[in-house]
Amino acid sequence: MASSFGERLRVSIYGESHGNGIGALIEGLPAGERIDTDTLMRFMERRQGGRNALSTARKEPDIPEFVSGVFEGRTTGFPVCIRIANTNTRSGDYNNLVLKPRPSHADYPAYVKWNGAADMRGGGHFSGRLTAPLCAAGGIAKQILSRHNIFAGAHLSSIGTVHDEVFPMLPEPSLFDAVAEKAFPVISDVQGERMQQEILAARQEGDSVGGTIECMILGLPAGLGDPMFDGIENRLARVLFGIPAVKALEFGDGFALSEMRGSQANDPYTVRDGKIITKTNRNGGILGGISTGMPLRFRVGIKPTPSISREQETVSLPDGEPTTIEIKGRHDPCIAQRAVPVIEAAAALCVLDLLLSDTEL
Amino acid sequence: MASSFGERLRVSIYGESHGNGIGALIEGLPAGERIDTDTLMRFMERRQGGRNALSTARKEPDIPEFVSGVFEGRTTGFPVCIRIANTNTRSGDYNNLVLKPRPSHADYPAYVKWNGAADMRGGGHFSGRLTAPLCAAGGIAKQILSRHNIFAGAHLSSIGTVHDEVFPMLPEPSLFDAVAEKAFPVISDVQGERMQQEILAARQEGDSVGGTIECMILGLPAGLGDPMFDGIENRLARVLFGIPAVKALEFGDGFALSEMRGSQANDPYTVRDGKIITKTNRNGGILGGISTGMPLRFRVGIKPTPSISREQETVSLPDGEPTTIEIKGRHDPCIAQRAVPVIEAAAALCVLDLLLSDTEL
Amino acid sequence: MASSFGERLRVSIYGESHGNGIGALIEGLPAGERIDTDTLMRFMERRQGGRNALSTARKEPDIPEFVSGVFEGRTTGFPVCIRIANTNTRSGDYNNLVLKPRPSHADYPAYVKWNGAADMRGGGHFSGRLTAPLCAAGGIAKQILSRHNIFAGAHLSSIGTVHDEVFPMLPEPSLFDAVAEKAFPVISDVQGERMQQEILAARQEGDSVGGTIECMILGLPAGLGDPMFDGIENRLARVLFGIPAVKALEFGDGFALSEMRGSQANDPYTVRDGKIITKTNRNGGILGGISTGMPLRFRVGIKPTPSISREQETVSLPDGEPTTIEIKGRHDPCIAQRAVPVIEAAAALCVLDLLLSDTEL
Amino acid sequence: MASSFGERLRVSIYGESHGNGIGALIEGLPAGERIDTDTLMRFMERRQGGRNALSTARKEPDIPEFVSGVFEGRTTGFPVCIRIANTNTRSGDYNNLVLKPRPSHADYPAYVKWNGAADMRGGGHFSGRLTAPLCAAGGIAKQILSRHNIFAGAHLSSIGTVHDEVFPMLPEPSLFDAVAEKAFPVISDVQGERMQQEILAARQEGDSVGGTIECMILGLPAGLGDPMFDGIENRLARVLFGIPAVKALEFGDGFALSEMRGSQANDPYTVRDGKIITKTNRNGGILGGISTGMPLRFRVGIKPTPSISREQETVSLPDGEPTTIEIKGRHDPCIAQRAVPVIEAAAALCVLDLLLSDTEL
Repeated sequence: MASSFGERLRVSIYGESHGNGIGALIEGLPAGERIDTDTLMRFMERRQGGRNALSTARKEPDIPEFVSGVFEGRTTGFPVCIRIANTNTRSGDYNNLVLKPRPSHADYPAYVKWNGAADMRGGGHFSGRLTAPLCAAGGIAKQILSRHNIFAGAHLSSIGTVHDEVFPMLPEPSLFDAVAEKAFPVISDVQGERMQQEILAARQEGDSVGGTIECMILGLPAGLGDPMFDGIENRLARVLFGIPAVKALEFGDGFALSEMRGSQANDPYTVRDGKIITKTNRNGGILGGISTGMPLRFRVGIKPTPSISREQETVSLPDGEPTTIEIKGRHDPCIAQRAVPVIEAAAALCVLDLLLSDTEL
Repeated sequence: MASSFGERLRVSIYGESHGNGIGALIEGLPAGERIDTDTLMRFMERRQGGRNALSTARKEPDIPEFVSGVFEGRTTGFPVCIRIANTNTRSGDYNNLVLKPRPSHADYPAYVKWNGAADMRGGGHFSGRLTAPLCAAGGIAKQILSRHNIFAGAHLSSIGTVHDEVFPMLPEPSLFDAVAEKAFPVISDVQGERMQQEILAARQEGDSVGGTIECMILGLPAGLGDPMFDGIENRLARVLFGIPAVKALEFGDGFALSEMRGSQANDPYTVRDGKIITKTNRNGGILGGISTGMPLRFRVGIKPTPSISREQETVSLPDGEPTTIEIKGRHDPCIAQRAVPVIEAAAALCVLDLLLSDTEL
Repeated sequence: MASSFGERLRVSIYGESHGNGIGALIEGLPAGERIDTDTLMRFMERRQGGRNALSTARKEPDIPEFVSGVFEGRTTGFPVCIRIANTNTRSGDYNNLVLKPRPSHADYPAYVKWNGAADMRGGGHFSGRLTAPLCAAGGIAKQILSRHNIFAGAHLSSIGTVHDEVFPMLPEPSLFDAVAEKAFPVISDVQGERMQQEILAARQEGDSVGGTIECMILGLPAGLGDPMFDGIENRLARVLFGIPAVKALEFGDGFALSEMRGSQANDPYTVRDGKIITKTNRNGGILGGISTGMPLRFRVGIKPTPSISREQETVSLPDGEPTTIEIKGRHDPCIAQRAVPVIEAAAALCVLDLLLSDTEL
Repeated sequence: MASSFGERLRVSIYGESHGNGIGALIEGLPAGERIDTDTLMRFMERRQGGRNALSTARKEPDIPEFVSGVFEGRTTGFPVCIRIANTNTRSGDYNNLVLKPRPSHADYPAYVKWNGAADMRGGGHFSGRLTAPLCAAGGIAKQILSRHNIFAGAHLSSIGTVHDEVFPMLPEPSLFDAVAEKAFPVISDVQGERMQQEILAARQEGDSVGGTIECMILGLPAGLGDPMFDGIENRLARVLFGIPAVKALEFGDGFALSEMRGSQANDPYTVRDGKIITKTNRNGGILGGISTGMPLRFRVGIKPTPSISREQETVSLPDGEPTTIEIKGRHDPCIAQRAVPVIEAAAALCVLDLLLSDTEL
């Protein structure tokens, strides 16, 4: 149903960029789990703009209010409704866009789908702002997972054609922490510096730029996931493509596998410390949709922010007269760096649902 | 639930490679739709092996029996159960594999998940053979869609590092027919010849090779799909990653978008013949998960067949002693060319479900 | 998923009796539908206590705030989040109950299920108060349905052993309006007076009493509903048993049919004004789960309020020592009369979902 | 999706009365469970006709073939496809019915819904014959549950106005076995004899008669089920109303509760053998949708077989001319006694799904 996902842990996202509020409804969270508010706020701040010249000028505190399902700092087992206020909306900036669909935004298909009834100010329900409640939900999932020694971490693996290092095959969770603490979430700060130059160059030209994010999940036992259409890949894919601007996804070596021979692509088994492992992890810890016990690994491709200040060709609605548009208002020259915790959040929610859906009598 | 997908059109796949039979249960097909058996058989033959030196020696007629839901050649509105016989199983070939997991097959995670109870002969429920009923279901969907002037077509876009041409931005449906009639489903036969050489070279070396497939859907109106987690990308992704060996997926220009500037990646609007279109289609006909009215376009990456005859390292189960394995029996040096109609089938089922799920009062 | 229902119209209820707020998330509402706030408030007031001596002393305005999905008084097509404040909580009244489960409340099974983590003050998520957001959602559904000439109406058909008249076979919608405007929602005011005496008598004895509600839906065309497990009966049943204290449900003549001969129970077909109808409607407008075009008709049985002030036997938790309990605080001697609009709300949501789920190409 | 139900254990029923076959697809069965074929056949025989003068002349062996998901007599964890042959169809008997809808059968609404495309010979997908695969699936569930000391049992509690004894509050599983072994599934054979006279009397008059069934489930721990719309009552209701002719359902004392005072209806807690129990079980082992640890108890009302040989009024389709119908062919004067194992099967599947859906980290 559109803005919801999950089997035993169901997450529904609601709200619009310029409406009364945004939030998430989380059904199926285990009961009695402590929510560390400070840790949650630090996690949510990672996706916020305004820390530097790379991001939008829109700054909002984004403090999640727990309307239900939390009592004295712990989950109760009942549905958790989270609400985040919209405090910094300046709809005037966007008013002129309503009848001139912005290229590569959802404006035009949304106009057709809902016959012009959708509240598309600031992107409406399609706005990147809706990733804030996703991070609130995912931040809680991360806390619960960490109590079971399962850790989700991500970094910005490229901006334009500039690439960060890749994660090692078997990273320590501390590497995730180290990246998370950086203002610019990369492994190599040298490469990070070059990436930031790319972003600033795009901005100076009234343009934007895309990037990729690599994510890993450590600590998952072997044997999780269901065959065919409810495998780990299927579940993650369904959620990840719900994050604005994600247009590509690969597991393990992904598209590179299609250029390999089987003898290169296959991950041989061996034993280390009494545990069956694979010597390589080109399949990203998933075979037949089921976890192998190796780290999960995937990469998403994020398109450039469609909002650019350069003049673009469009049409007027509903008559369809050719015209042009220059998008004013606040917009990021790149959103990939802000999407890093969002990817972690989505992965953590998927993995927690996977664990909760795994059944035994 | 694992081997099922779809909202108003629900497809469930059942069976094992060496069991009594395989098949599909399809719930929600519109009533009164004629099923052209000849067209369906021709479609299903496209995924069968044995037409040439590139494919497995296992040859089965794969004739779908309609156990229910079809009366006098038309759908009745009731669940359609399709059954395909397993006539050519030689389990002896695989017996030795049970306790030596084949690298990059699902053997090991399946062993852990089901405690050794799964019938993994020939890959069990994970076998590529399970794509036969998916094609039977998808072939029916294609027939229904074509009555509404909606067409799904695909071609093999690469084998190893050899690439076919790409589909034009606005192909004619006849191009899909032309590719479908070829023994090797490419646009450029010259490139197709080189691809086949790649496959034969891998085979001669007891190895295998991967590839990619490009797919398009023509004729979809603008405004279909739901926001966030039930967009067209999310729905397609969930199904496509259920096809064995698919490890990567991108919509429109996909990962290439992440290297572009917004001014390059954005698709400007214009009007042609009174219809609002985009001048380019880098977003693959989908914005915010919703169709733009332009052709849908995506590409999947398929890993090399994990079954290779070369010796590989593995462990014995359950004790985990290091050992080696040489996989005997019939296996394709490449499955990408056989996966082309499977991708079409999955796309057609998704799109038909999308149309059936689109609701108005 | 527990507190949600619906296929294309998904309603999720959240909140606890004494928490920060309660509400509903509604996904899939058609776009562009006007919400008449006055009508909605009047509908919601029908379930509120405090209008007379029959109801709880807890009086709350229960004004729904539209956090999302509504713009300038109309639905946008995006998820509608409704929030209702909890303004009148006096948790002190209930504190002593936590470790002494109240007989026939959910206290004990909830304690076991969530290991004592659930916030059960005032009944927590199980409280009858959670029917307020259900009424908010259902009130919107009623407005949309009425624009399609579909009307849901209900009356209190019995209290204890005192019975109201039954609805006529083909009522006018105005009868529903007439009942809705009464402080005590019955057809026969004479019987209503006797029912109220029953309630007051129970109250005076520190006791409570149960009742039944008859509900009808007019204007549904023939041919709606899906066979077997998604028929109209199945869909309604799933929602109706989610309303606190509902323990029985029958469609048409229900249990009375089991005492009839087929020749009495069958509804013969005839034609009136060119329309195929049945001469009787003992099957309640549903055959094989599918609507016949006759009015839908069902009846629910509601148990007496479990909260009574008389001393009752219970045990202490977690040790299980026998003890007694006298329930103080505000509680209704009967909730059946307040449940009448709740039943209408649930029915309206089910029927709207049914209409939205009905698919054609 | 119509003919499917279940969350982690998903059961889909397919087939038509006079089609190629009927069956069930079961997804999510635990792996490694032995299926005792003899026990399963004995269970399925309980719903078959032809054992005496009370039932239809249609006699079919109804032997379930396991097409998939079972290997060497045990479940594999993969989807289990069951197929049952239709061997005894005589469509000629029913041909004349197609354009004269039989009163209180699904013929007319099905005609409208599917525009005449549905294969309604013998009732099509609505036929009571479709309960055979439900029994096959439920019989497997019963075997698995019994390994966990959970037992589902039912008896015919009334025919017309003749009533059997009720189950004791805490029955032994052996009572279920004793009833199951009887040709006429009642507790009191004296009452059973009178019930059979009722059925025969109806038959002699070319008529039919209805009945009720009481069902209990023993051994369920406290704390199972989800609040609001996924409670045990909701889950059972959704499945039970999918069984043909079921028109009423009550849990515990059901409708009788609505005539009681709270002081009568409430179940006081006490302790026996160190276990918290209730002294009465008027709520049927369920409070707030969650199990209390007491036996589950419910009762369904089954309408008289709509097929009677007496002349009935109907209309011709599609023109709607008034006419009459006399239903020839084989039909039972009562189906309630044959529905007893079907109710057990449905309950067992629901309860097994409930156990599999109960999640803990």
